[in-house]
Amino acid sequence: MSYSALMTDLYELTMLAGYFDETMHEKPAVFDLFFRTPPFKGSYAVFAGLEPALEYLSELCFTEEDLSYLKGLGIFKPAFLDYLRDFRFRGKVIAPPEGTVVFPHEPLLTVEGSLAEAQYVETALLNLVNFQTLVATKAARLTVSAGDGVVIEFGLRRAQGPDGGLSVCRGAYIGGVRSTSNVWAGQVFGIPVKGTHAHSWIMAFSDELTAFRAYAECFPDSCVLLVDTYDTLKSGLPNALTVARELRERGHEMLGVRLDSGDLAYLSKEARRMFDEAGFPDVKIVASNELDEYVIRSMRSEGGRVDIYGVGTKLASCSGEGGGALGGVYKLVRFEDRPKLKVTSDITKSTVPDRKRVVRVIDRDGIFIMDVMCRETEELKSGDIVYDPTNPSRNKPVPPDVRFEEIRSAVMENGKVVQPSPPLEEMADRCADQLGRLPNGSLRLQYPHIYKVSISPQLHELRESLMEKYEP
Amino acid sequence: MSYSALMTDLYELTMLAGYFDETMHEKPAVFDLFFRTPPFKGSYAVFAGLEPALEYLSELCFTEEDLSYLKGLGIFKPAFLDYLRDFRFRGKVIAPPEGTVVFPHEPLLTVEGSLAEAQYVETALLNLVNFQTLVATKAARLTVSAGDGVVIEFGLRRAQGPDGGLSVCRGAYIGGVRSTSNVWAGQVFGIPVKGTHAHSWIMAFSDELTAFRAYAECFPDSCVLLVDTYDTLKSGLPNALTVARELRERGHEMLGVRLDSGDLAYLSKEARRMFDEAGFPDVKIVASNELDEYVIRSMRSEGGRVDIYGVGTKLASCSGEGGGALGGVYKLVRFEDRPKLKVTSDITKSTVPDRKRVVRVIDRDGIFIMDVMCRETEELKSGDIVYDPTNPSRNKPVPPDVRFEEIRSAVMENGKVVQPSPPLEEMADRCADQLGRLPNGSLRLQYPHIYKVSISPQLHELRESLMEKYEP
Repeated sequence: MSYSALMTDLYELTMLAGYFDETMHEKPAVFDLFFRTPPFKGSYAVFAGLEPALEYLSELCFTEEDLSYLKGLGIFKPAFLDYLRDFRFRGKVIAPPEGTVVFPHEPLLTVEGSLAEAQYVETALLNLVNFQTLVATKAARLTVSAGDGVVIEFGLRRAQGPDGGLSVCRGAYIGGVRSTSNVWAGQVFGIPVKGTHAHSWIMAFSDELTAFRAYAECFPDSCVLLVDTYDTLKSGLPNALTVARELRERGHEMLGVRLDSGDLAYLSKEARRMFDEAGFPDVKIVASNELDEYVIRSMRSEGGRVDIYGVGTKLASCSGEGGGALGGVYKLVRFEDRPKLKVTSDITKSTVPDRKRVVRVIDRDGIFIMDVMCRETEELKSGDIVYDPTNPSRNKPVPPDVRFEEIRSAVMENGKVVQPSPPLEEMADRCADQLGRLPNGSLRLQYPHIYKVSISPQLHELRESLMEKYEP
Repeated sequence: MSYSALMTDLYELTMLAGYFDETMHEKPAVFDLFFRTPPFKGSYAVFAGLEPALEYLSELCFTEEDLSYLKGLGIFKPAFLDYLRDFRFRGKVIAPPEGTVVFPHEPLLTVEGSLAEAQYVETALLNLVNFQTLVATKAARLTVSAGDGVVIEFGLRRAQGPDGGLSVCRGAYIGGVRSTSNVWAGQVFGIPVKGTHAHSWIMAFSDELTAFRAYAECFPDSCVLLVDTYDTLKSGLPNALTVARELRERGHEMLGVRLDSGDLAYLSKEARRMFDEAGFPDVKIVASNELDEYVIRSMRSEGGRVDIYGVGTKLASCSGEGGGALGGVYKLVRFEDRPKLKVTSDITKSTVPDRKRVVRVIDRDGIFIMDVMCRETEELKSGDIVYDPTNPSRNKPVPPDVRFEEIRSAVMENGKVVQPSPPLEEMADRCADQLGRLPNGSLRLQYPHIYKVSISPQLHELRESLMEKYEP
């Protein structure tokens, strides 16, 4: 994958030009990337997008073609364009590993460097982290809803172009989706690929049974048949059963059938019964058709017998209430060795100043209790009073009998990756493990238990003192 | 832009392998790409994505790397992989020009070729056309809502990765969005780029006025100031006015101010009054912050004085009721020289068979009255009875005193582009022109007038006879 240095909002360039003009560009700055509201009305997000973000930072440079385009805009001075020729990202990045379950207000990425480099990368980092995190979170919700069932990604035809489709697969895999129909994603990321056939396959033959037989002939050991072209119960399933029997006579086992319309919960029960009674308990039932986490939940609650859920549109577009986009933002928290605070009349939009550590508080059973943002050198301990960042009058002590785990570490120093990204499988495993360690009710699809994110005593004190100073 | 041949769902490859095995792959086939429901609960869509689609078709071929990946999947036979080595798209494509306003059920693309090539390209064509059309439609809705105001695209940070961001800009421009913050899109597509500065610019200086002055110093002729970092009315606007006066003293005029929070309708009126009274009637007022077509409409109905609307998240994610994805589908309508029909119990999901022309019926004032799908050689005329494709009992005659215009033509023959794509400006102009020629009420954001799409007498007859034949 290769990224353009111009993959940015123009304002990053105009600001860069301004800082250069004011000779402020080399002054040290620290930015936090975080979100304020979890997507989909849930309680959490699954962090993803770090590997592409680090790739972007490592590669960042302006080509002669880029510089000539910028010159043509007629708003930049020659000295600034010259400066861009050697512009690189040489800063530091702190982040959790991908697949980490994260919460509102706590920094995901922290970027430290010169004001120029740390500011310039804002748009690209948001682009890469926002969408990957959004889709990983959607995938986690689907996976949780599916229980023992498996979720497959089917959404390439509804994604934002070819690369949008690739992004979807990567994030979805981290969030728990086990395979995809997207062959390119299989090639690029090593994600298992799956597929059956379309209705047009059936229509290209004289009748459904002939079409099924031809498909089974070609793929005797990976045969999944789409059974709803004419009538699922009267035609599709009986014909599929005939083919399953014929395959077995030739020493093969049919893999599954796919339901793509109608009452999927009901049809899955009928299909299961039909195949079980005929001695095919291992034939899998795949369901697709505008599925999302809510439809999957309701199918399961009605006793549906789907083994594999194919999710396309709703995963690729990350749609649904509270979906569409993750509202990640990128805020200056320290500049020229002074902590910075954005003060607004709405405290929920005020930032948390300065460099910080994100400490996860974990009980004896390994369950996550709360996350606490602390100052760099501050040691958190049981009994410390911690504060709600959106409402400091709400505070409580850190409980006893817990352990503390810092969820982030330096992944880039001086513009070089210092922690290579693990394989996607490891990210997916991390996500699955952490989802299982959230407090009761956190995984609820709507109105979930709200996980506590707090600020430490010293960070609270710093923030209060900065707020006082800014008081009008 | 370059596309991978593996940018597809696995099922296209398994079907291709099956057709090859059955030696059906060279038989002639015709597919229609169409949608059943307009996005965003509107009445229309703006067709886009043809140029990238034709690029994809022109370039389609499997590399040795692709073939070796496919071999590794262990499901394809060597003879088939050999066949793929020389696989190209050598077929025909019929389509309207991009920027054409289109309606449900009528074919956008028609793809003719061997069964192999015409089937294989399904996923990629849907991927490219679905999203471009969706975003062009969203942009048209925003543009219509904005009236005399101008819409700018700000959504790169919320798009599906870098290329998702590019796709957004291209489609948005066709739909009427005049510029973008995305510099890469400026470079690639020649779309004008715009930008101001972030809140962090203000926070990097000792105070707001100093920050404004520094920005104006650097960009005296393209100075737009973000006025909501501290307090829009008490601090941001008065400071911006000071800078506007200082710029004028030095022979420059300030371009505008940007409002990014608070009651944008109210603040825009206050800002307009302030600048007008001070003798700056040309300073533009830019507004941003979670805008969509509904917010823009309500701001205007309250007398808001915004000149330029910056739309980010809602445009890049195409979210909103009925949004997220365009449900374009790709269906076999003719095979081996026989018209094909997909019959389902739900007539709204049944297809319209065979090759067809899409004829737009236009009245004396140039207003579009209805679109009629006709058979290839059929000449439509006033008085002909035409039928609702989703409910054939609803029919009406074509009115008198109209002219007929075929909205599509062959754009690719034998795998070669025969109509080069026009510049994006021309597509955007076409869209603006056609939006102005829709019947009253068609542009309403919700519950719009439903534009009539019908099938011709001969096509109706063909469909009925095929349906009878399929009767169980």
